[in-house]
Amino acid sequence: MERPVIIGVGMTPVGEHWRLSLRELAVEAILNAMDDAGVDRVDSLYVGNMISGSFVEQENLGALIADWAGLGNIPAVKIEAACASGGAALQEGAKAVMSGLEDVVAVVGVEKMTDAWPSDATRYLAYAADAEYEHFHGASFVALNALIMRYYMQRYGYTEEDLALFAVNAHANGAKNPYAMFKRAITVDTVMRSPYIADPIKLFDASPVCDGAAAAIITTKEKAKELGVPKEKWIEVAGFSRAIDTINLANREDLLTLKAAKVASERAYKMAGISVKDIDLFEVHDAFTVMAALSLEAIGVAEKGKGAMLAKEGQIAIDADYPIQTMGGLKSRGHPVGATGMYQTVEAVLQLRGEAPDGIQVPDAETALTQNIGGTGSNITITILRRV
Amino acid sequence: MERPVIIGVGMTPVGEHWRLSLRELAVEAILNAMDDAGVDRVDSLYVGNMISGSFVEQENLGALIADWAGLGNIPAVKIEAACASGGAALQEGAKAVMSGLEDVVAVVGVEKMTDAWPSDATRYLAYAADAEYEHFHGASFVALNALIMRYYMQRYGYTEEDLALFAVNAHANGAKNPYAMFKRAITVDTVMRSPYIADPIKLFDASPVCDGAAAAIITTKEKAKELGVPKEKWIEVAGFSRAIDTINLANREDLLTLKAAKVASERAYKMAGISVKDIDLFEVHDAFTVMAALSLEAIGVAEKGKGAMLAKEGQIAIDADYPIQTMGGLKSRGHPVGATGMYQTVEAVLQLRGEAPDGIQVPDAETALTQNIGGTGSNITITILRRV
Repeated sequence: MERPVIIGVGMTPVGEHWRLSLRELAVEAILNAMDDAGVDRVDSLYVGNMISGSFVEQENLGALIADWAGLGNIPAVKIEAACASGGAALQEGAKAVMSGLEDVVAVVGVEKMTDAWPSDATRYLAYAADAEYEHFHGASFVALNALIMRYYMQRYGYTEEDLALFAVNAHANGAKNPYAMFKRAITVDTVMRSPYIADPIKLFDASPVCDGAAAAIITTKEKAKELGVPKEKWIEVAGFSRAIDTINLANREDLLTLKAAKVASERAYKMAGISVKDIDLFEVHDAFTVMAALSLEAIGVAEKGKGAMLAKEGQIAIDADYPIQTMGGLKSRGHPVGATGMYQTVEAVLQLRGEAPDGIQVPDAETALTQNIGGTGSNITITILRRV
Repeated sequence: MERPVIIGVGMTPVGEHWRLSLRELAVEAILNAMDDAGVDRVDSLYVGNMISGSFVEQENLGALIADWAGLGNIPAVKIEAACASGGAALQEGAKAVMSGLEDVVAVVGVEKMTDAWPSDATRYLAYAADAEYEHFHGASFVALNALIMRYYMQRYGYTEEDLALFAVNAHANGAKNPYAMFKRAITVDTVMRSPYIADPIKLFDASPVCDGAAAAIITTKEKAKELGVPKEKWIEVAGFSRAIDTINLANREDLLTLKAAKVASERAYKMAGISVKDIDLFEVHDAFTVMAALSLEAIGVAEKGKGAMLAKEGQIAIDADYPIQTMGGLKSRGHPVGATGMYQTVEAVLQLRGEAPDGIQVPDAETALTQNIGGTGSNITITILRRV
């Protein structure tokens, strides 16, 4: 089975884009990606977006964005998988290429969150949880994650300081990424002195509400050659899968196992013909610090209960064994929810092309994994990208 | 290129389901379809839905529905293309099968609209239009369609009575469909005596706000044989495409040409290797009566400006040359927006299997076309189904 390749990527800086609307952000990212790929047309468009209806009163994003990007009368739809919408859109784009129906596919992840009141943002994000069995009863999305963090610390004997190390690592890398929302390093003390949002989650354990868009152009190897894209630029979508888990936490077999990530990563490793040992960098979904720990365990980097040990032992830095959040992750680069999976994709592609910014390039990176979580682990995508 | 086949379909009645939630509707349709196909598992799930976030404060529908249907840790996402979400989801499911990555795919279209206040429903439906250039200025979705209807009548000399004939035909057929919302015949007089919503659109020119879910199981021919599905039940997804047009009406080349339907139907005919003459029945998107007329023109059944003539000349009835809305269409069966494309699919499959209800079976139907419109024609899907 021939794997597709990513031949171009583009993005906007992540931040509070008061002067840009959703369509403008998306168009900028797409045109950047088309420019990078050297193509002036695409066969179809996939838009990863979680919740534009609530945030900006706009659905029908496929038509909106393809129209405003000037892409013509192509097929275009929105893919929604809560905060994993970007990762899922990439996979649908890859599948479209593999189906033989579409040769050159654009995928963009976009979210415009700052047009809503912050209290409304909290409400809208909870739509990723179970509306009837969680949100209706007053559980916000951060509150659900706080339950998980509290239990993780209690069961494995970690402290809040231990988990803060994930935020410290993310900011250390994000400080060197010009596209990151928070471009400054922090210390454990910064995290500990930040206010509680939902005990034990503090402001600096959590990713920010923000805007952004990131895009990629996918095609077949044959077409990439035909288009004259230099081979150094081909990044293979070597393996991918995603899986769901119970939408509400109460139904989970184990609150501390991201089963969807476990199942999806096993399928993705098999498809790519590799094991976790072959991967050089990991962009995992640290919407909250504890999620970084659970993710590393679920995808097989750490044993169960040992995810936070990797941070304590200094193994997640750029020059260590398991570099994660190499461009800042959700915490420092930012988390425009439906766009995040595509930011991870763009960042992984830049790493594999050796084009990461100074100080955060993972040396000789050949294989990267991105993991994008929707809900409290209820919909997780895993994608493995590889130099050709 | 091997075409996939639909081996099972299922649906709920369309109506105001006060006692059923979105997840319950979707699960019922999926389990009915799996039962019909004789399968007890699927590889993945595609959910067509326009706007659950606004209507029921729930996103992440892939996880929610796969979880509650007991489908296990499979890939599952929501596909959004405004009111064409159902049609787009079917096409994504077919593409997934054609990619070789997934063997047996479930597709469900679902919408739960009656949990919102009617005034909110009007607002949410306008998210299919251009939020910044149309809705923001007070144009509701029905108002935009009213502009189109007014212009159509003015340009081609039709009367409101002429367009009412599409509603009369839809109700005549829907009266015989036990799953339809409005199971009674009406006359032109019924339409003319109904109140104006947005002049010249009257209540009976418009499809209703309602709830429902419809599903299909898609697989390869090889797998269908392996599963022992009798060949009479195989309905081939012979050709399909979709296209976007400008999201707002002001940018259209011509207000009365559904260019997206024209482009998409040409591509779909080519993929299926047929012409419009080979099609035995048409499920077109009559959200408003004028849309039925424009659709028939765009897909090549009628010449430009002659769509409404087909209704006047009695050519759209079950036993006429171009049967449309054979089970009631959006007007009488109902229009639970994101589910509609899948209702069209299920109905076309039943017609092709010869299992339509008494009085509305199209004799010896071999090929059917479904056309599902998102926005005011800005995102249109065309799918051609055929007996094997």
